[in-house]
Amino acid sequence: MQKDFINIPTLAVVGPGLIGGSVAAALKKANAVKHVVGVGSDQADLNMAQSLGLIDTVASLPHAAAQADIILLATPVGAMPSLLKELKKHLHENCIVTDVGSTKKNIVHQAEKILQDSFNQFVPAHPIAGAEKTGPKAASSKLFDGKNVVLTPTNKTNKTAQEEVVKMWVACGARVLVMSPNEHDEILASVSHVPHFLSSVYMWQVASAFNSDLRLTLAGTGFQDFTRIAAGSAEVWRDIFLSNKEAVLNELKQVQKAFAHAEKTLIESDEKALYDFLEKAALARRLWASRSGYGE
Amino acid sequence: MQKDFINIPTLAVVGPGLIGGSVAAALKKANAVKHVVGVGSDQADLNMAQSLGLIDTVASLPHAAAQADIILLATPVGAMPSLLKELKKHLHENCIVTDVGSTKKNIVHQAEKILQDSFNQFVPAHPIAGAEKTGPKAASSKLFDGKNVVLTPTNKTNKTAQEEVVKMWVACGARVLVMSPNEHDEILASVSHVPHFLSSVYMWQVASAFNSDLRLTLAGTGFQDFTRIAAGSAEVWRDIFLSNKEAVLNELKQVQKAFAHAEKTLIESDEKALYDFLEKAALARRLWASRSGYGE
Repeated sequence: MQKDFINIPTLAVVGPGLIGGSVAAALKKANAVKHVVGVGSDQADLNMAQSLGLIDTVASLPHAAAQADIILLATPVGAMPSLLKELKKHLHENCIVTDVGSTKKNIVHQAEKILQDSFNQFVPAHPIAGAEKTGPKAASSKLFDGKNVVLTPTNKTNKTAQEEVVKMWVACGARVLVMSPNEHDEILASVSHVPHFLSSVYMWQVASAFNSDLRLTLAGTGFQDFTRIAAGSAEVWRDIFLSNKEAVLNELKQVQKAFAHAEKTLIESDEKALYDFLEKAALARRLWASRSGYGE
Repeated sequence: MQKDFINIPTLAVVGPGLIGGSVAAALKKANAVKHVVGVGSDQADLNMAQSLGLIDTVASLPHAAAQADIILLATPVGAMPSLLKELKKHLHENCIVTDVGSTKKNIVHQAEKILQDSFNQFVPAHPIAGAEKTGPKAASSKLFDGKNVVLTPTNKTNKTAQEEVVKMWVACGARVLVMSPNEHDEILASVSHVPHFLSSVYMWQVASAFNSDLRLTLAGTGFQDFTRIAAGSAEVWRDIFLSNKEAVLNELKQVQKAFAHAEKTLIESDEKALYDFLEKAALARRLWASRSGYGE
């Protein structure tokens, strides 16, 4: 147990919102961090994070980088390149840099280009956890309980740094998986980005219909569940789609093939083939509900 | 108020499960029914419905038809033709027949063919309400509170019968809309059948992938919401798709057009067009959540 335990002297959280704030809260609750310094561009959010006890002090990025043992980049993906450029100037050689971005190939590629000989200090990560709400007020020490965190190190990533980041996430209650940036992006394209794309396409199509008001009046709980993700931030999702474009487009092609098969069963009124496709989907979804820990 | 009030001397519920049982419960709570007789093929379900107080007595269809002022057909859509044939032999001229089927053109067509000169006594209806669970145990007097019920009368439907069915649903707490069977089926194709189709296609595609286990391990809450409906009964949904085939296929064509546009914005990395489509979908979904009474 001793060797798995982590006690971070100083953690810098760049963007102490839902994710960054929850990491700070979870590590504090686990007595796995001594001091948390918050960095951010929104003073009201920083004040809120401090009054909630998520961060102990506030500093500029250069000052935070000078003190920190681990720097957690918890900003939207689009802000990463400029942050890494600024960070590169102030990073000391014993500091670990990690992130929470939802796409990885792009970030790893940029980090290698920008950090250069400090790239080995960067441990790319993606916690599969979130909530409808954002900001430090939504942060919770339990956000990562039993959730998956994917690390996507390269062959240049420092092994000790990687182990520290594993310990950090384990202290947050998460389960850590390791895969390549490429594999991560392909899988997330399938289970996260494509559902968002389809839900948005569908919602857009209904809202664009000449009788959309009447349609929406008769929409029920199935519609509600199916379209919930379409309410997400257009800015955040535009960035995700663009930064994972190739994998998303490849996966959409596979969905189109499945769609064509299913449509054909209906066109031909092929009762058996239609039933078989629906039944396979239903069984897979019920199995997932019983195994995943998410429930129905 | 007096003239809107209904007090049904005897209601027969054919299939006192979730929907049929909830109608009985809601009418009893509103003092809008004196006696409820249950009809069904599953003795255990009938016993359960009776012990829960949803129905007062159990009878065969001929005996129930002889007593009833209103007969509510609350069985799966596929069972309707044979039920109507049996009912035709025993229906007295003052009895109103109504149903809860989720497609209407097909049922109306069959009812006209089977009931012939009694077709004017049939008031086709579809309550837009349901739950994950089924059977009399899941029934609730509150199931229809604030929910929409669509009546799809034809020019042959007896106006007095139609008014009685409106009163029945209002007594259940529902809001009643009237439209043609055709319009109903087109709208439900859009807001209910197509989401189920897309969710099932997607779930089936993920489950068929060579690395489906790994994918499903990394699936989160967005996946959970988007695929929830895919867990529904393959038998029920096969019947719905087949009975509303034309409208569903037409609507799927519209979704494919929207898909092609959205895909193009990503292929071309057209940031503005991609954002615009996502933003229009997000705004429409948020507006729906605030207006519909369903919430997020």
